[in-house]
Amino acid sequence: MGIVTCDIATSVNGFVAGTDQRPDHPFGDGIDESVLHGWMFDEPDDHATEIAGILDAGAFVMGRNMFSPGRGAWDPEWHGWWGDEPPYRAPVFVLTHHPRESLTLGATTFHFVTAGAERALELARDVSGDRNVAIAGGAATVNQYLRLGAIDELRLHVTPSIVAAGERLMDAVGAHRLELVSARPTPSVVHLTYRVA
Amino acid sequence: MGIVTCDIATSVNGFVAGTDQRPDHPFGDGIDESVLHGWMFDEPDDHATEIAGILDAGAFVMGRNMFSPGRGAWDPEWHGWWGDEPPYRAPVFVLTHHPRESLTLGATTFHFVTAGAERALELARDVSGDRNVAIAGGAATVNQYLRLGAIDELRLHVTPSIVAAGERLMDAVGAHRLELVSARPTPSVVHLTYRVA
Repeated sequence: MGIVTCDIATSVNGFVAGTDQRPDHPFGDGIDESVLHGWMFDEPDDHATEIAGILDAGAFVMGRNMFSPGRGAWDPEWHGWWGDEPPYRAPVFVLTHHPRESLTLGATTFHFVTAGAERALELARDVSGDRNVAIAGGAATVNQYLRLGAIDELRLHVTPSIVAAGERLMDAVGAHRLELVSARPTPSVVHLTYRVA
Repeated sequence: MGIVTCDIATSVNGFVAGTDQRPDHPFGDGIDESVLHGWMFDEPDDHATEIAGILDAGAFVMGRNMFSPGRGAWDPEWHGWWGDEPPYRAPVFVLTHHPRESLTLGATTFHFVTAGAERALELARDVSGDRNVAIAGGAATVNQYLRLGAIDELRLHVTPSIVAAGERLMDAVGAHRLELVSARPTPSVVHLTYRVA
């Protein structure tokens, strides 16, 4: 059986997004996207192993706010940020309070789960077989699963900036002992993999 | 001329102390001291370079709360946490709202500065000659100097734990671009040195 992983790019002080996220600024204000994700988009060859790890899962779970900039009732025209062929290529369970029909785009199907975080994880485990389940973000969703003690491996991609305000990882999630599994520092990002005890 | 450095041991989520710091629990509740500082006390040979770096300064600045568990007016009997021979062996400027005579213990003299953080740094620079000035902690003091843009080099010693609550580093300090100067991961602590732009 696989484990539950979480890969996320963060500032040194734990911010994974800024303030006021919206369609034309998906990561909000106060975030320099070229710092937070430049390693991934501008230097994919230098971080090939880590990038492959992010997408190596049999199923994904993400928060509503990661799927859509909208809140409240769904705009059925909104099909996510990723175009016709999202990179997940596996079932993705989206946490939401608003029911919606499943949506298939290329090799990825998004399922919208209104029964809560534990149920979404259960559904993801059911379809992931021997592969891992990846908690894809954002901060609130990762924090929710950390609080539940459901994440086995936290893979932090720490980028060289201090962010003033926004969505903060590992905030009010209780106390957890970690174990460093691997670390690979590079100028543009320090890749740290921790096992959560 | 030297630079302004700051070495500090932190949890992965930026906590450098827990809650309710007091004489018999200097780092408060919710902090496992053996995780936060075990590398320093139990494995000094494995981290000799980093430990030497912490104390390699011509002067130090620290917050009142790092010098003393007390608040308000001074208890003149309190001579700090470090016994008769504190490890600093240089002038230490303690930020406080309460005047106090300077205190010499071994090769270290503590000066108590009521004129604010900028003035304390100025005094430290004046006596440090060509050597660095080190901001010794705690979180509130480091955050104050980060906010002022006064720290040139931030040396984070990131220990494998998530802490629930307490004194948090890099909290409400504005936005700063960093540059990774060096990194050395070990199982008990990841040493990260950043230059603050």
